Amino acid sequence: MGNADFERPHPVVIPPAKSFLHSLKSGLKETLLPDDPFRQFKNQSASKKFILGLQYFVPILEWAPRYTFSFFKADVIAGITIASLAVPQGISYANLANLPPVIGLYSSFVPPLVYAMLGSSRDLAVGTVAVPSLLISSMLGKVVNPHEDPKHYIQLALTATFFAGVFQSALGILRLGFIVDFLSHATIVGFMGGAATVVCLQQLKGILGLVHFTQGTDLISVMQSVFSQMHQWRWESGALGACFLFFLLLIRYFSKRKPCFFWINAMAPLTSVVLGSVLVYLTHAEKHGVQVIGHLKKGLNPPSVSELAFGSPHLMTAVKTGIIIGVIALAEGVAVGRSFAMFKNYHIDGNKEMIAFGMMNIAGSCTSCYLTTGPFSRTAVNFNAGCKTAVSNIVMATAVMITLLFLTPLFYYTPLVVLSSIITAAMLGLIDYEAAIHLWEVDKFDFFVCISAYVGVVFGSVEIGLVVAVTISLLRMLLFVARPRTFRLGNISNSMIYRSMDQYPTANSVPGVLILQIDAPIYFANANYLRERISRWICDEEDRLKSTGGPTLQYVILDMSAIGSIDTSGISMLEEVKKHTDRRGLKLVLANPRSEVIKKLEKTKFIETVGQEWIYLTVGEAVASCNFMLHTCKSKRASVQESDAQENV
Amino acid sequence: MGNADFERPHPVVIPPAKSFLHSLKSGLKETLLPDDPFRQFKNQSASKKFILGLQYFVPILEWAPRYTFSFFKADVIAGITIASLAVPQGISYANLANLPPVIGLYSSFVPPLVYAMLGSSRDLAVGTVAVPSLLISSMLGKVVNPHEDPKHYIQLALTATFFAGVFQSALGILRLGFIVDFLSHATIVGFMGGAATVVCLQQLKGILGLVHFTQGTDLISVMQSVFSQMHQWRWESGALGACFLFFLLLIRYFSKRKPCFFWINAMAPLTSVVLGSVLVYLTHAEKHGVQVIGHLKKGLNPPSVSELAFGSPHLMTAVKTGIIIGVIALAEGVAVGRSFAMFKNYHIDGNKEMIAFGMMNIAGSCTSCYLTTGPFSRTAVNFNAGCKTAVSNIVMATAVMITLLFLTPLFYYTPLVVLSSIITAAMLGLIDYEAAIHLWEVDKFDFFVCISAYVGVVFGSVEIGLVVAVTISLLRMLLFVARPRTFRLGNISNSMIYRSMDQYPTANSVPGVLILQIDAPIYFANANYLRERISRWICDEEDRLKSTGGPTLQYVILDMSAIGSIDTSGISMLEEVKKHTDRRGLKLVLANPRSEVIKKLEKTKFIETVGQEWIYLTVGEAVASCNFMLHTCKSKRASVQESDAQENV
Repeated sequence: MGNADFERPHPVVIPPAKSFLHSLKSGLKETLLPDDPFRQFKNQSASKKFILGLQYFVPILEWAPRYTFSFFKADVIAGITIASLAVPQGISYANLANLPPVIGLYSSFVPPLVYAMLGSSRDLAVGTVAVPSLLISSMLGKVVNPHEDPKHYIQLALTATFFAGVFQSALGILRLGFIVDFLSHATIVGFMGGAATVVCLQQLKGILGLVHFTQGTDLISVMQSVFSQMHQWRWESGALGACFLFFLLLIRYFSKRKPCFFWINAMAPLTSVVLGSVLVYLTHAEKHGVQVIGHLKKGLNPPSVSELAFGSPHLMTAVKTGIIIGVIALAEGVAVGRSFAMFKNYHIDGNKEMIAFGMMNIAGSCTSCYLTTGPFSRTAVNFNAGCKTAVSNIVMATAVMITLLFLTPLFYYTPLVVLSSIITAAMLGLIDYEAAIHLWEVDKFDFFVCISAYVGVVFGSVEIGLVVAVTISLLRMLLFVARPRTFRLGNISNSMIYRSMDQYPTANSVPGVLILQIDAPIYFANANYLRERISRWICDEEDRLKSTGGPTLQYVILDMSAIGSIDTSGISMLEEVKKHTDRRGLKLVLANPRSEVIKKLEKTKFIETVGQEWIYLTVGEAVASCNFMLHTCKSKRASVQESDAQENV
Repeated sequence: MGNADFERPHPVVIPPAKSFLHSLKSGLKETLLPDDPFRQFKNQSASKKFILGLQYFVPILEWAPRYTFSFFKADVIAGITIASLAVPQGISYANLANLPPVIGLYSSFVPPLVYAMLGSSRDLAVGTVAVPSLLISSMLGKVVNPHEDPKHYIQLALTATFFAGVFQSALGILRLGFIVDFLSHATIVGFMGGAATVVCLQQLKGILGLVHFTQGTDLISVMQSVFSQMHQWRWESGALGACFLFFLLLIRYFSKRKPCFFWINAMAPLTSVVLGSVLVYLTHAEKHGVQVIGHLKKGLNPPSVSELAFGSPHLMTAVKTGIIIGVIALAEGVAVGRSFAMFKNYHIDGNKEMIAFGMMNIAGSCTSCYLTTGPFSRTAVNFNAGCKTAVSNIVMATAVMITLLFLTPLFYYTPLVVLSSIITAAMLGLIDYEAAIHLWEVDKFDFFVCISAYVGVVFGSVEIGLVVAVTISLLRMLLFVARPRTFRLGNISNSMIYRSMDQYPTANSVPGVLILQIDAPIYFANANYLRERISRWICDEEDRLKSTGGPTLQYVILDMSAIGSIDTSGISMLEEVKKHTDRRGLKLVLANPRSEVIKKLEKTKFIETVGQEWIYLTVGEAVASCNFMLHTCKSKRASVQESDAQENV
């Protein structure tokens, strides 16, 4: 190859410049509409477009006409199953949020109806969730005491729900749903585990029958609070709680091993409530230290538009709480909807789901409901019970409506300790230590993020944990960007292929040529680092060649295949690298600059600086050309030396 | 190729797993010590190591022994030149910071001496700078009025300087200097331009001889303040200011065109001060509305350790101010040091420079100096005057010392308006509209960042501008990461090379095979997007093939060359893509997974899911194999159809 005249067969193409407006438009489209929701509107008549648009925003219009009786049968069974879960869970979580238990029931009536119309998931079961409930009690409890001023506290909770809904819809409408993606999987595992631990700790109040309890949610305050009141522990309450917890965990254990136990598991919470209430009624345990729910108001959700406390001095706290619980609810709801859609092979538009969640919470806040989303546990039960469409939510809402209208007196004797057991059992399932172990095995940094979130929640507070986790995730991403990897490439034997010598230790280095690959886009955040790193590579290579007595370094090839984009700081960096190599008498060669990069290199005249002839399509061609030049120079030098020698002679 | 039995020549190698500690160590080293500062300590004796270490932290020990008389001559000339700049600039900027003018002179005495010992730049000239001066007056002026309680105000300014120094050293010692890199070039251009505009606006007070002036720094308050006091404009002051400004700008204009005017330009500020003072002295203009500096205390810097106001109620403001001005001073100083080191081809360790700046400011705050750094203008003069080492700083400090000891009375008649003209002339040079135009041409988003910073500073405040610019820069980086580009690859004629069909429109698509390239590492922030985008590519390709009546899609090849790393969310994404392709009856093929990626794919058993035989080293080999399979299937199918047809017959 060296002897033949070298010809460069494949030119690097500079794509034609696109107008600014065109690239702005395509950039915005890629950012905000990555899933191309308007695809179906193409080439349709105006009336068809209107109908499609209506169906897009109100999916029930799309699937209702295709609804069949066999679907209905399946949905009724699933709906009743989740209703049996919704009633005790609703009461329990309302209790956790320091709200009247009946609000938990209200929240399982209106929001599911709204979601059934607007939501696009076929499996999602709507309901209240533990972590936002806890957040409401801890964040709002700081400014208004729920026991001293319950009316104001409820108003703030409804207001927070309203703002959560507004925030959720706004994210969806502005198509900024990808913000939720910044909560990484590792963050969520750690955060949920921590929150579940904290919620379990809070249940010690109910299980031990304590009257006074710390306002803090961290492990240390709870433990202090529990152990400083050992003389006030109620053994009746504790024993009852332990029994029910054991019962619930045992059933879950069996249902996991044998799918035929599924129904028993789904019905277990309601069974516990019924058993507990009957037990208390028969033994009059409410007079012996077992706290009961007491009177529940009969009747459907009262309207609550006038309760939204926009004039409250604590409005900002409500807004802040609303945004945080809104994001957490979205993260859970969207992830749950997506996972089950994956199972059944249909598609969910995350932004549209956010609008549905938002509308559901706005409607909820006007009808005495607090924050709802699509909890994983209830959705899994819905899915396992064989639901076909969102009609199962309507069935659940109907069942809850019947409960609200006629059955509330039955809950008078329900002991609080049973509710605590139900929450604890549900929460223990959320501590996903297996996922944490998996993170440790696959990615230590992800594990660190996860544990930080967990520790932040358990030893600080839910907000601290969330802030810590998001900050670490973002820092990690900034670090990813700020410290890209660089590799030295070598030739894979018997080929024109060049790969990292780190990964392919048998790859051969090319004498006199240093081939570097940069593994990330070059931005302001990593430009300085890369400049330092490249000059270090060059120094190291020169040292290595000196110590081995090999030929001196002549060429530095930058493989730009992995550099997807570059900004002005990145281009300055390349200019500095060029100066640096020039000063050391090295030739800088570029291989495979990508379209974004080559466009900018052309605009800044960097191509002229390097020389058009030093830009190649592949590393292989660049090396071949360098080898050819090296050979020519060597033979020239050799002939010069020869003639010198002859002259000297 | 299709007919011959296909053999895969180059296997993809999974590099051996490294121990956790090993990768943690190398990761930390790459993050914190990218420039390998310990390189020189390798293979040295203990005493040699100690000397090298001492020389590392106190570079003067390294270069002083090699110092020659010819260096000294050059340094004396440069030092006197920058001293002639340091005296008027020091007084002017102290004035801008609402501090007594003499503090500006103090600040050109101690800090340059400290820097000469600890700094590693040979060209940097130490001095006060405009933007931090303005920030001191606007941030500290909010809590303490400099005219009503000057003592407390000075104490706060010194305390802020102290914390700036501590923060700077801490960044350097912890080797977190890369934080400064997150201020992108575009941000700095916009921010500096905006700050220069704001500083110029502030000079209207001095030039128009106004006594009352707004505390705000934004364009609107300043314009209101100026035009509401039109009857109080002093024409004497205005005329004098305009003359000097014209004089300074004219000289700069000529010195830019002819290098021989350089000395005149360097001496112009001092000349203006002398001319202005003589003029005022002769005409007694101080009695006709031209404000003068007045009495300047004689003598060297008094110690000020006891002045540091750690007990002040406004300590937090001082800390906040310190951190902000510390970062801005670092950004300017480090960038200036680096650029001039580039010119002269020596290396500067950014983190070490930060320690030097920090020490200089800590020492300064204990000797009545306020914040100093390496200003671009003064360093450029130093460089042009032919400085050789940091001794020029020592010469400047000596000249300032002589001024402080003997010459302060000479400044009694110096008119403030001349100082305003000097600042304005310096600031007008900082508004780098050419850089902004360049940004517009090369990268529209960078231009947007730049303009946002500018508008934020000019219409909001310096802090708002900085926050806006940093936020937009970070958002941009998150967007970069959240929305990586994906490309469809095609075959370059007469080769095994596959490149983006966007960039190489002549590249040919391969029938039945979709080749996608992902242009960035896969993280939690882009995993969802990429999943959606890949399924959209597949849909689009199937639609295209359907409409053109081509062969159906059979293979999806993911070119992973540009995927430098992946996290657990990214792996889940790949698993989902695999499920998606399986459901559509497509085969997923991976090409060139990199070492970080393949390790994780192996750990999570994704390699088994895809099948080891479907992972290739290059796209070319993957396509060849797909083509081979397609051909075999087709001929099989054809023979089956043939036999079917025969049976039917």
